[in-house]
Amino acid sequence: MALIVQKYGGTSVGDIERIKNVAKKVSRFKKEGHKLVVVLSAMSGQTDNLIKMAYQITDEPNERELDMLISTGERITIPLLAMALQALGHKAVSLTGRQSGIFTDSTYTKARIKNISNENVKRYLDEDYIVVVAGFQGIDDRQNVTTLGRGGSDTTGVALAVALKADLCEIYTDVDGVYTTDPNVEPKARRIDRISYEEMLEMASLGAKVLQTRSVEFAAKYRMPVVVKSTFKDGPGTWVVAEEPSMEKVVVSSVVYDKNQAKLTVVGVPDKPGIAAKIFGVIAKEEINVDMIIQNVSTTDLTDLSLTVPRTEAGKTMKLLKTAVAEIGAKDVVMDENIGKVSIIGVGMRSHTGVAAKLFSLLADAGINIEMISTSEIKISCVIRRDDVDRAVRIMHAGFSLDAQ
Amino acid sequence: MALIVQKYGGTSVGDIERIKNVAKKVSRFKKEGHKLVVVLSAMSGQTDNLIKMAYQITDEPNERELDMLISTGERITIPLLAMALQALGHKAVSLTGRQSGIFTDSTYTKARIKNISNENVKRYLDEDYIVVVAGFQGIDDRQNVTTLGRGGSDTTGVALAVALKADLCEIYTDVDGVYTTDPNVEPKARRIDRISYEEMLEMASLGAKVLQTRSVEFAAKYRMPVVVKSTFKDGPGTWVVAEEPSMEKVVVSSVVYDKNQAKLTVVGVPDKPGIAAKIFGVIAKEEINVDMIIQNVSTTDLTDLSLTVPRTEAGKTMKLLKTAVAEIGAKDVVMDENIGKVSIIGVGMRSHTGVAAKLFSLLADAGINIEMISTSEIKISCVIRRDDVDRAVRIMHAGFSLDAQ
Repeated sequence: MALIVQKYGGTSVGDIERIKNVAKKVSRFKKEGHKLVVVLSAMSGQTDNLIKMAYQITDEPNERELDMLISTGERITIPLLAMALQALGHKAVSLTGRQSGIFTDSTYTKARIKNISNENVKRYLDEDYIVVVAGFQGIDDRQNVTTLGRGGSDTTGVALAVALKADLCEIYTDVDGVYTTDPNVEPKARRIDRISYEEMLEMASLGAKVLQTRSVEFAAKYRMPVVVKSTFKDGPGTWVVAEEPSMEKVVVSSVVYDKNQAKLTVVGVPDKPGIAAKIFGVIAKEEINVDMIIQNVSTTDLTDLSLTVPRTEAGKTMKLLKTAVAEIGAKDVVMDENIGKVSIIGVGMRSHTGVAAKLFSLLADAGINIEMISTSEIKISCVIRRDDVDRAVRIMHAGFSLDAQ
Repeated sequence: MALIVQKYGGTSVGDIERIKNVAKKVSRFKKEGHKLVVVLSAMSGQTDNLIKMAYQITDEPNERELDMLISTGERITIPLLAMALQALGHKAVSLTGRQSGIFTDSTYTKARIKNISNENVKRYLDEDYIVVVAGFQGIDDRQNVTTLGRGGSDTTGVALAVALKADLCEIYTDVDGVYTTDPNVEPKARRIDRISYEEMLEMASLGAKVLQTRSVEFAAKYRMPVVVKSTFKDGPGTWVVAEEPSMEKVVVSSVVYDKNQAKLTVVGVPDKPGIAAKIFGVIAKEEINVDMIIQNVSTTDLTDLSLTVPRTEAGKTMKLLKTAVAEIGAKDVVMDENIGKVSIIGVGMRSHTGVAAKLFSLLADAGINIEMISTSEIKISCVIRRDDVDRAVRIMHAGFSLDAQ
């Protein structure tokens, strides 16, 4: 008998029949004697529809109001699942983010969980309820509704598992685990049995959509075992766990890409101390996630500074940089939205050499130009033309022996 | 400069364009210098869709979960209106029932407001915000979400107006006021200029759908002036106010009907003290609204007892009565769903005689059989066959000189 937190994604609760199927699945676990907390996303497409409505009202919807709006999707799926569980004879109750005690900061649309007061959840668990929690949402100090960003329900799941000291957090989705790369791009991709928190964290932050980055951070920090499984067919899934000795033997464990980035270059920046601080200061204040930064070596007293940001924030960043450019006396800002990022990840890189050289020659042989490079102990990322991304992924997947036999 | 609470119904916020139109309307009032609280319903049809989903899950959805589900509709319209107002240059904020401090009892799906702690609303008003409040919903002592029943947004509007000591509560809807009867049944129906709280209360409780009964009770109790107007065209609307001397001159001010009732008859009830108390005790415990009650004069020691309830609660009542019948030794319970109720209302009835006699002969002349009768100081109601209801309404409207010239 264990305490398990299960999270079901948007496609898993995409319509009434699927919600009933999730209820049957949950019911089986309950009958095995487990205590269960079930975290749900909104029905697939629902959140996008709500966002579309907001943009039909105004081009720049206020983010507090946006969070009020888009937090409704999960409030529809949770009572429906609770009812379906009751119809199967279980005690079940649905709880909103607030009712589950999920407190966040006030960074609307991408708030971070600050703490969880889980007395309410615990009380219901003690009374033998299956507790159905709205993912993706919380409230801030002033009782405003906040949301946790794309994939935020994963984070709700893992954070609740940590707060409740659960034995396990299961993430149910429409794929049967974490793959060596996106099977839509490379059909020879293979499911990974076990992966370390660190690798998963790199995968998530470099663009793999299977888990929200923040959820992996929580899992890693508190050593919460997470397993990613399919809602629709049984299978072992992928276990995300602390690093194991055998993992180092694999040099590269996955290839990841991200087509949702844009590059901005500030041209003709005076090359003197404090300028970069000024530029990134204004961007940081707006909570924009800057990914890569490259400053060209300056041979004159002027230099160029490039950075990449999520494409959704490119317009906002452009505005901020235009203002900054005037202040610091740079020449111009140019934006390039036709870029993509490809990355290789593996804890084995720590103990193997020549990995970067091999990657660069694989791309060079294919005639793919590398525009920016960024590395860490366990990953190497390259910015290339967006049109080259799919081809690069396949070349890298084969080149590092990840293709299925 | 006044403090005005405006409530807009479901058709008024039925789509994005209509929400933008409401924003323009609200903006005009704001520019006149008024402080404004705007209470919204869900988009028309939205709540019904949500209820339909619940019944696709189970035949008997749990009412706590149902309230969680159906309270989402207003949480979609309120941020959209707030955004639309912001786009017009106003400060605006949307607040849920909880954030507006609307505390109710725990009678899910038809909760009653117990008190309103409006500090939050007041603070925003003081800071010059237009406050957009989710109608129809509140929370109970245990922080569960509750809803106030069909038309509950009216009650949110009036109750907030009372709590804030507003100057006026305006109810914007798809008709331009309160009519002498339903214009869909009798095209000669006329808009009423001014009507007393008492008459409005009878109209609402006898089936007129223009205002929720509970909202009129609040208005009457605290003497809050309410005006019912059209969202879509300008006009004087109908003022609901304290009784004025001129109102007594009109004997009958309106004709109302209700087709959503069912009659249940307990047959062969032992005619001894305490039996009726037992029967109604079990029904009252389930918070079912019994409307009329008739006990036949008994010539033997057995009697029949008939009662009417809303049709939606007929099944539940039937179940309860079947159990009671066994306990008290009655013979059977029979249900009749093909009934309807027609009523005439007017404060003038107090000072005029022969009104009932005239009503009965109007119906008799038309060959319409009266099955049950119930009267109060200012109304007379008759239960008839449902098929006769429309015809009866037209005969009564003409017979009491309400037809437009």
